[in-house]
Amino acid sequence: MDVYVSGVGMTKFGRSKNSLEKMMSEAASSALKEAQLERVDAIYMGVMNVEEFVGDSNYATLLADTLGLTGVPSTRVETASSTGAGAFETAFYAVASGHMQNVLVLAGEKMTHLPTAQTTRILSEVIDRSERRYGATMPALAAMIAQKYGREFNLSMLKLEDILAQVAIKNHSNGSFNPYAQFRKIITKEDYLKSQMVSYPLRLYDCAPITDGASAIILSSQPTPIMVSGIGHATDTAAVRHRASITSFNSTKEAALKAYTMAQVNPSEIQFAEVHDAFTLFEIIGTEDLGLFSPGEGWKALEDGITHLQGKLPINPSGGLKARGHPVGASGLAQLVEIVYQLRGEAGRERQLEKAEIGLAQSTGGLGNNNLVTILERSDRNRIMKVGTTRSREGWSPDYHPKIKASKKMTTSPPSEGVGILETFTTLYTTPEGFRSPLTLGFVKTKGGELVMACNPDYRSPKELKLGKKVYLNTREGLYVFEKLTLWNRLKHWIKRK
Amino acid sequence: MDVYVSGVGMTKFGRSKNSLEKMMSEAASSALKEAQLERVDAIYMGVMNVEEFVGDSNYATLLADTLGLTGVPSTRVETASSTGAGAFETAFYAVASGHMQNVLVLAGEKMTHLPTAQTTRILSEVIDRSERRYGATMPALAAMIAQKYGREFNLSMLKLEDILAQVAIKNHSNGSFNPYAQFRKIITKEDYLKSQMVSYPLRLYDCAPITDGASAIILSSQPTPIMVSGIGHATDTAAVRHRASITSFNSTKEAALKAYTMAQVNPSEIQFAEVHDAFTLFEIIGTEDLGLFSPGEGWKALEDGITHLQGKLPINPSGGLKARGHPVGASGLAQLVEIVYQLRGEAGRERQLEKAEIGLAQSTGGLGNNNLVTILERSDRNRIMKVGTTRSREGWSPDYHPKIKASKKMTTSPPSEGVGILETFTTLYTTPEGFRSPLTLGFVKTKGGELVMACNPDYRSPKELKLGKKVYLNTREGLYVFEKLTLWNRLKHWIKRK
Repeated sequence: MDVYVSGVGMTKFGRSKNSLEKMMSEAASSALKEAQLERVDAIYMGVMNVEEFVGDSNYATLLADTLGLTGVPSTRVETASSTGAGAFETAFYAVASGHMQNVLVLAGEKMTHLPTAQTTRILSEVIDRSERRYGATMPALAAMIAQKYGREFNLSMLKLEDILAQVAIKNHSNGSFNPYAQFRKIITKEDYLKSQMVSYPLRLYDCAPITDGASAIILSSQPTPIMVSGIGHATDTAAVRHRASITSFNSTKEAALKAYTMAQVNPSEIQFAEVHDAFTLFEIIGTEDLGLFSPGEGWKALEDGITHLQGKLPINPSGGLKARGHPVGASGLAQLVEIVYQLRGEAGRERQLEKAEIGLAQSTGGLGNNNLVTILERSDRNRIMKVGTTRSREGWSPDYHPKIKASKKMTTSPPSEGVGILETFTTLYTTPEGFRSPLTLGFVKTKGGELVMACNPDYRSPKELKLGKKVYLNTREGLYVFEKLTLWNRLKHWIKRK
Repeated sequence: MDVYVSGVGMTKFGRSKNSLEKMMSEAASSALKEAQLERVDAIYMGVMNVEEFVGDSNYATLLADTLGLTGVPSTRVETASSTGAGAFETAFYAVASGHMQNVLVLAGEKMTHLPTAQTTRILSEVIDRSERRYGATMPALAAMIAQKYGREFNLSMLKLEDILAQVAIKNHSNGSFNPYAQFRKIITKEDYLKSQMVSYPLRLYDCAPITDGASAIILSSQPTPIMVSGIGHATDTAAVRHRASITSFNSTKEAALKAYTMAQVNPSEIQFAEVHDAFTLFEIIGTEDLGLFSPGEGWKALEDGITHLQGKLPINPSGGLKARGHPVGASGLAQLVEIVYQLRGEAGRERQLEKAEIGLAQSTGGLGNNNLVTILERSDRNRIMKVGTTRSREGWSPDYHPKIKASKKMTTSPPSEGVGILETFTTLYTTPEGFRSPLTLGFVKTKGGELVMACNPDYRSPKELKLGKKVYLNTREGLYVFEKLTLWNRLKHWIKRK
């Protein structure tokens, strides 16, 4: 059964004095009003961590009751930072099953009321325990990926910095036209360069902010001008270092392939996209993983203006997570609200895209762990092939890097000491509670070919380290530590082992 | 599209040294093996509060990876203590939509490793804030409902005590035959009476224990001997006192009506049921709300042996939450695993029911907030009407008490002081952190007809209070307090107000 969008709504994103329920109610009311509904068959409610951010449990019930929908079945759905998209997917199947006619998808998060250190700790819980114990945060892992991407595609640090700045500048510019965005001011390259280093080479302007907000969509079995044409969902290893590549995400590629197959379209048909730019580089990687650009070419499309609001394939017309803000549970659904506004031609004079008949949203849970790709289109769009689930689709298929079967097989290997290669690293300045700042973290490839996370208490400046160089890998208090590869180090450890 | 069960699995419930992932893996492995599958199209994973019990977030991904199913779409579903049933429902729609062929439903909770006071605090977060701030716990609210039920159906406290004891004794006896149960010892009335008072009149043996465990079910679109014939889901007001009646749950009734309608059966056709006996009386209320017995008659069926293992309509053949244990996220799914064992004739010589062609499970989220009813049957069962969603069904429909539209409309009323009626109360001995023990809590009906929660710091023994008596309602530090209705009290407050 085909599934349609019959109403959308969202709050302004940013720092809000309202409670989570109040924000959710505001978004839901708009969506219900658009759909001309007073009652729905079910609520699928996405919130990432209401337990620790707000101190409540049983939130699906509380919400139904607060909305004046007491009695309506209400289910909470969570897939980390892609939660909004996960709730949408779950609701999609409920309607597609023919058992439900109208379903409210609602997603939100309340984050700004807590101290940043506490918020950082809560957000870090999405990271695999084995990496979290080193003090790794989301920005730290993203920074390590950024350095590795630069090296893989032969970008100088200056060039990489320029690309990252361009993503931030473009998305802030787009956000300036979006009345729902947290940040509505444009930024310059100078502003970017002045912004605080969070985790080398990522600055504050490379990271999506901490935000309050909620978004809502009504899905219906009754035809409307907007239909859901494809949904794909895939996970990846919990630990980032367990992947064969860290400069592209299999989870996005697999989710994209499923979504394109269901929608019976190829990437070349996509006219615009909302991409999970929790960190600036992730927009570039996302557009490559989605097959919109070739690997290592995403940044060129940005430079050439293709992904700009007036370009051939606008990315994040809303301003993205970067400028619209990132209430973790809500973002995945807010992306879809933007797609709907664009498809309807309701995005406003400055933000409205010329060509908007089919759009795609890509949402990431955790560090590339639990990703969803959703394609929406105008019901009156001229299609060559009918939307479906069974037909095979000829065309694009992703260039997966070797898939890892399961992390657990890799974590059983014995600890390695000795010479290794520094695959990537970061120097983290905004450390979580209990960790000294700055904190240097890296992925080191051991002689056995395994990638391990390691820290280095000695390095003070990232300039002292280089990717691809040999380091000495050592263990201290149960943690891997990497050091400069000096004769003295090698001798010291040789003696110790005797 | 019809949906079938192709595999089930569960761990032994109880105190476990294993991690939550390990327990989940064990349950999943059994289910996958039964279904002869190595891969599934999706995982729907239920856990109520992994953030606070275990300290992890992004758990759906972690689980897929741990199971060796890296890459498989994985979604966390939560509906408080009915989470396992909620995950099953969500997976049901995914398969029913025709988009998925084989889906793993997995549910679990790890609870026993924390101090009881901390566990109690975490569990209390499911209670509406306005009631939680008085120190109300789940047992406290259940105890207030038990007293009210006794009064409503003219049961003496001695009679009520005997009924509650009988539920506990029956379920412990059933559990003694269940190799997966936490408690496998039978108990006597003497044991029951000796057990510690938790919240008057509920004793330790009236409350489901704190438990670790996991359960798993594979749902498939391919026919198997067991089919899912009906699912219903409904919520109720977040605050218990906002309901027109507290001795039956509209959420169960509505969920049951939906499930019966989808399955095209009447309650009289149900041969056995697993009912959410988190507190002994809830089994009695559950059987009444499900239409298996008339209101106020459930306890008679128990007394007459009808709900015993050898009776005409066995309730909780597994031992129920009471004896099998209650890992909050897992219980709703474990009930369905028991139904499958019974339908297949695999429950073991002592526990296997004679007639087991159609069974029902009822699961409760929070205090009657977010309830699910699921009906499973043998695919070869002789049916009069085909399972479906559209046909109307003649027969039973529940006797709802007046439905409250939304709690928010009631919480805006101004505070009331003066004479009120004590509708029900409890004396709570196991208080949450920050509250003195014993703590006397009650629902008082104000002159305006509103039910408010109130505490009383003076009463030391529940014997001093009586349901239906007048009390003096007062406010102290923003909380309602009720006192004996003496001339002095009335005078004092009269003077204060002048």
